[in-house]
Formats: sequence, structure tokens, C-alpha cells
Amino acid sequence: MNPIITLTTDFGHKGPFVAVMKGVILQHAPDTRIIDLTHEIHVHWPAEAGFWLSRAYRYFPAGTVHMAVVDPGVGTERNIVALEFDGHVFVAPDNGLLPTVFENGGHFKAWRMSDEWHAAQGWPTPSNTFHGRDIFAPLAAAIATGRVRPADIGPAVPELIPSLLEEPAREGRELRGCVVTIDHFGNLITNIDERHLADLRRPLIRVAGRQFTLQQTYGRVQPGDFLALINSFGVVEIARAEGSAADGLGLGRGAPVFVADDY
Amino acid sequence: MNPIITLTTDFGHKGPFVAVMKGVILQHAPDTRIIDLTHEIHVHWPAEAGFWLSRAYRYFPAGTVHMAVVDPGVGTERNIVALEFDGHVFVAPDNGLLPTVFENGGHFKAWRMSDEWHAAQGWPTPSNTFHGRDIFAPLAAAIATGRVRPADIGPAVPELIPSLLEEPAREGRELRGCVVTIDHFGNLITNIDERHLADLRRPLIRVAGRQFTLQQTYGRVQPGDFLALINSFGVVEIARAEGSAADGLGLGRGAPVFVADDY
Amino acid sequence: MNPIITLTTDFGHKGPFVAVMKGVILQHAPDTRIIDLTHEIHVHWPAEAGFWLSRAYRYFPAGTVHMAVVDPGVGTERNIVALEFDGHVFVAPDNGLLPTVFENGGHFKAWRMSDEWHAAQGWPTPSNTFHGRDIFAPLAAAIATGRVRPADIGPAVPELIPSLLEEPAREGRELRGCVVTIDHFGNLITNIDERHLADLRRPLIRVAGRQFTLQQTYGRVQPGDFLALINSFGVVEIARAEGSAADGLGLGRGAPVFVADDY
Repeated sequence: MNPIITLTTDFGHKGPFVAVMKGVILQHAPDTRIIDLTHEIHVHWPAEAGFWLSRAYRYFPAGTVHMAVVDPGVGTERNIVALEFDGHVFVAPDNGLLPTVFENGGHFKAWRMSDEWHAAQGWPTPSNTFHGRDIFAPLAAAIATGRVRPADIGPAVPELIPSLLEEPAREGRELRGCVVTIDHFGNLITNIDERHLADLRRPLIRVAGRQFTLQQTYGRVQPGDFLALINSFGVVEIARAEGSAADGLGLGRGAPVFVADDY
Repeated sequence: MNPIITLTTDFGHKGPFVAVMKGVILQHAPDTRIIDLTHEIHVHWPAEAGFWLSRAYRYFPAGTVHMAVVDPGVGTERNIVALEFDGHVFVAPDNGLLPTVFENGGHFKAWRMSDEWHAAQGWPTPSNTFHGRDIFAPLAAAIATGRVRPADIGPAVPELIPSLLEEPAREGRELRGCVVTIDHFGNLITNIDERHLADLRRPLIRVAGRQFTLQQTYGRVQPGDFLALINSFGVVEIARAEGSAADGLGLGRGAPVFVADDY
Repeated sequence: MNPIITLTTDFGHKGPFVAVMKGVILQHAPDTRIIDLTHEIHVHWPAEAGFWLSRAYRYFPAGTVHMAVVDPGVGTERNIVALEFDGHVFVAPDNGLLPTVFENGGHFKAWRMSDEWHAAQGWPTPSNTFHGRDIFAPLAAAIATGRVRPADIGPAVPELIPSLLEEPAREGRELRGCVVTIDHFGNLITNIDERHLADLRRPLIRVAGRQFTLQQTYGRVQPGDFLALINSFGVVEIARAEGSAADGLGLGRGAPVFVADDY
């Protein structure tokens, strides 16, 4: 099977930034399937990239290389890491992007690229501002083809820079999480995982002064009504049937969301 | 030749929603070529998806599988259907999306997925809110590889839920249609097909109190001037040379457009 | 290796306009890798397409066919040209799009498509308004597979319609360039190439009444601070660390940018 590389960035779709990364990948690994995970990560916010990767990677075949470039520190001293986790490989800057991938537990192994290893590859001298094209793309291609293993690139790193995305925490009788991102429909997607609700008899979601019990799907309420549900990625989501919860509630990234037991 | 699947959704480009459908397709059919038709269908409006599919499918090789997921009723009782038409296959929810594909006539055959057939596939239990990933993607992959024929998935259905897109209709001496969608340039694209104009000697297009004769192309009028033409998909379009007709006329989806004979 | 075609347009992502070009390419050349360079060129402004192509083409394998369709004159008398330059092929309308690709020098050969050659191909009669689908796509496919060479399509043309993008010019003791485009981060990207600065001891960038020395990368200044740098495509860029220079300075396309020597 052809190798697969997914791309996750905050580059948007203006200009050839994503395209030249693909060009470089195809120069190093002509048979690679390249899938855009998303290029609309909130700019300069690695945590959202990690959140989506943690929820999306398992839908790709084992062995897929997930390359994530949300990299406000490009050209400074931050490390570049390659990880193995659950049969997948991740390459990204070590800036808080990756820990969210492992938040539900499991064992990962990580290595940081050494200057010596990089120098030995014969790649063109990297620019100071676009390591996605100059380092991550050839690295992902080399790993995807099997020419390089993550462990080859430098010393193992026992831990990573932590994510700036706060984990849900207990606050009195409630669990407090937050809105991580808003999808194209205006659904508010939180970092509260279904496992956080496992011991609740009748979870009640509280947000912006309103309370919701969990529904099965959008069509179970009337158009225009708000609802909460466990979405298809296993996290609590606040939605509005045939409408935008974000617009209707006036909420965005970082808004607190509470869960209590109505039992 | 490798199988081809096109994707048409209202998911936009935020988050990994489109990407995970591609991941699932590649798990089931690694050699598939996946082409994004568009992911910017007006949210929750299946009619636009049907309109564009009806105009676009013929530019793909025969045998292409067109998967369309504009699905506000996901997780409720709506059916999932697979159709054969003009050498192409379409899979979509039965919610008014597909009839527009056949509006210019021709014979289609449709089947709805039975619970029994679905249960026998061994696919993971579907979520309640993302059948694009959990049902449509593996279904499209199975059909694209030839492992499954549309007729395999359940009983034939003689007719589909009708489209919410009204057909053009005669109103006095005029034909009344409407703006279906607006493209990136601000061109107003209507549901008035060139066949509706076949018996007119000198069609006159009336919209927002203005009248236009048909031009051949944008460059035939001065920059800034409005014009009407039969566009490259065979429908009446209102445009503005080197400008946006939608902005200039203040019109959007659903705006009425009239055609009379100036003879 | 499979042939590669890149696509550069001002079509955006609404509707199936890009997709049907890909469908046509796959009908003519089923094994082609198709890469979207960008579809968010400023509408009706070929110069930006040429600018990005000039900076991006070299990151693709030699032999790549770069198809660019920013074509406000579609259906009028403008020519369609195919060019060979630096081991790559470019197909585009002759409307000022392509000269920027060669502005840093080098030898190109160009041919314009003759009506006779077009008529002999047996392609469907082209529409008046979508030559991307009806002419450029089959042409790019034919060249990418090697069935057609650029020189086959018609007479050689010694020169092209010039670009509307003004070259940087000396103005007193300063060099005056301009902002060509703004990326997703709000970085202001100019047409001042690093070669223009080659003989300056300490280049000082002046824009909107402010002055900047050149930095190595974004992370070298404090978040919120403005800076100038030579970006990863070799041109002067005005940026704001972890922010948008375009928003902060209130500048857009065409804004003048000056470079002087602070020595």
C-alpha cells in the first residue's frame, strides 16, 4: 500500500504554502497519498491541532504519518520531534501541540531531531521561517517511505512541552471544561470526553446560563432549539438544530462548559 | 483504472471532518482517487448539492462514485440511498438532495440501505451524528472497488423524497426561476436551463428591476456592467464584468429571475 | 513516476469549478497527481498567480505542468500559451500572468495554441466562459502524459503580454516596491527580492511611516511587535509576531514599501 501523510496546519488556503510542502513530499516520496487534515487551525494555537489529531488519527490506516505544523516559534530553539503512538507516527514542533494526542492514556515514544542528523541528510539549507517545507516535509516523506525510522533522527525525549489546553477539572460538584473549537456549523466542541461522564447517571450540561440534557442527535429537537450531545469524536458538543450555537449563544473558544449530575 | 470517488458536503474546511471520511475510504479502498467536488454547500441545504452534482458529474469518468453528505437529519429515520444514473453512481441521504440530478430526464435506479445489510458488513457501530464517516464512506468505498453493487444494499425504491428546489414555472408570459447559488466571483447562478429558452427568439432576462439580453461571455461588456449569459453548466447566470453581481444587485439565494421573449 | 499537474486559480472553493477540471484531467490522464497550488488568487488579478508560481514552481519535481487559470478575458481574443522554463511547463492565458515567473531572468520558450491545433484534438466544443475545464485541463493532461509537447500546439511566440505588477524601481536613494499579497497570517508579502538588497550594508524597510531592520524570524521580536524579514520565498515581508501586520498597519495589496541603506 502507498504510504499516507496527513497535513495539519494553520496556513489557510491563500498562497502556495501547503502546496509547496506537497511538492517537496512528492520529490522525496513520489507514491505518497497526501491528505489535508485541516489547514484552518486557529493561527498560532498548537493546542487545537493536537486536539483534532487526537480525535482523527485513528480513522487513518496504521502506519500513517501525521505531520502537524502550527509553529509560531519557527526558526527559534524549539525542538522538532517524531513520535510513535498506537501504530501511527506524528511529526511536529515540540511546542505543546502533541501532548493532547495522548491525553486519554497510552504509551508513546518520542525523539527529537539532532542538528547532526539534520546536517547529514543533504537537504537544502532550511529557511528561518518555513520549516514545514524545508524540514517537516522531507522528514515526513522519509519516514512514510520507511527510509527513516523516528528513532533514527536523534535522542529519545522522555517528555514533551505540555499543552496550553487545560484538562477538564472538578470544581465543586461540577466538572469544568471549555470550548476548544467551533466547527463550520457553529457547533461548540469541548474538551470534555465521554469518559469524564462515565459515572454520571444523568449528565446535565451547563453553558452561558442554560442547561441541557444530552440528546442522541441534532434531529431530536426542533429546528432552532439548542442541545448538547456526545459528538462523533466522543466529546461534549453544544449545538443548535439547523442553526449555529456559536452565534446563538455568543460563545467562542475558551468559553467554560460545566457538567453536573442531575440525578 | 483506479476507482474515483467525489465528495460533496456542507462541512467547510474547519476541523478534520472531510479528512476522516477520506481516511476511512483509504482503509477500505486504498487505491481510490478522491476528488473534493465542494465542501461549501450552503449548510443544511441539500438542494444545492443536488444542483451542482447534476451539472458536474458528467465531467468525471463513467463509473465514478459521487458521495454527497448534506444531512441535517443524520441519525433520524431518513434513508440512505445508492443510485445508478447515466453510468455514474450516487450515494446520499434520501432528503431531497438527489432528484435534481435527474431533472433533465433520464432513467435512474435507486436502492435504500436496509438495516440487515448494514449489520452484515461488520463496520464499527455508527455514531448518531456523522454517517458521512461511519456509513457513507465505507459504502462509497465498497461500491467504488466493485465489491458491492448499489442493488446489493437493500430494496429498490421507486421514488425519492422530492427536492426543495422549485422547478422553473411559467407565470403569465414569463418563465420564473430563481437564484440557486452564488459563486466565488459573485455570479448569480439560476435554475433556468438553456432548454427552457429553446423556443424563445430573443430571451430577455429580468432581475431586480433590470433587463438583460444574453451575452456570449463576460468580456463582451465593459468592466462594471451587468450581463446575463448561459453559463458553462448550461444555466442562466447574471454576472458583472470584473465585478460581483451579487454585491452590485444586492441579491442572494432564492431571488426570483424572470425570462421573457423580447420578440 | 506519475505526471504531476498543479492548479492555480481565482475560483475559490464554492461550487464544483475546480473539481470538474480535475475530472477532465483524470479522463485524459488517469494517473496524474493533481496538486492545488492555490484557488484563492485575488479574483481577476493574474499578476498574483504569476508571482506565486514564480516562487513556488521549483519545489515540484522537474517536468511538473503548472496550469494557471486567472482569466477575466475568457472567451475573447486572448491567446492560450504553453511555456517551457527551467525544466517545468506552464499553461495559462496570455494576459500578464506568466511574465512574473521569469522576472529573475532565465530563458523561456513559449507557444500559443492555434485554432487549427485545437480543432484537431477532438475535444468537445468549448464553452465561452470556462476554458479551464474545456481547454486548459485537457491541454495540461496531454502535456503531462507526454502525448503533446508545448511546441506542438502552435507557433512560437517571442514575447508575452507584460505583467501589471510593476517591478521595484529606484526612487531617489530608496528602492520602491509594493505589497503583492497578504497571507493567511496577515503577513504583507512584497515584490522586493533579496537580490535587490544584495548591495545594501544594512537594509532599512520603510512602510506606513515606520522603519524596520531585517530580522531572521518571527520569534526574534516580542509578540505584537512588527518586523521585516526576507521570507522563505526570498522576498521582503512585513510581519507582526503572533499577529496580523495587515490588520495592525491597515495596509493591503498595492501599498508601497521602501528600502534604503541605513549604512
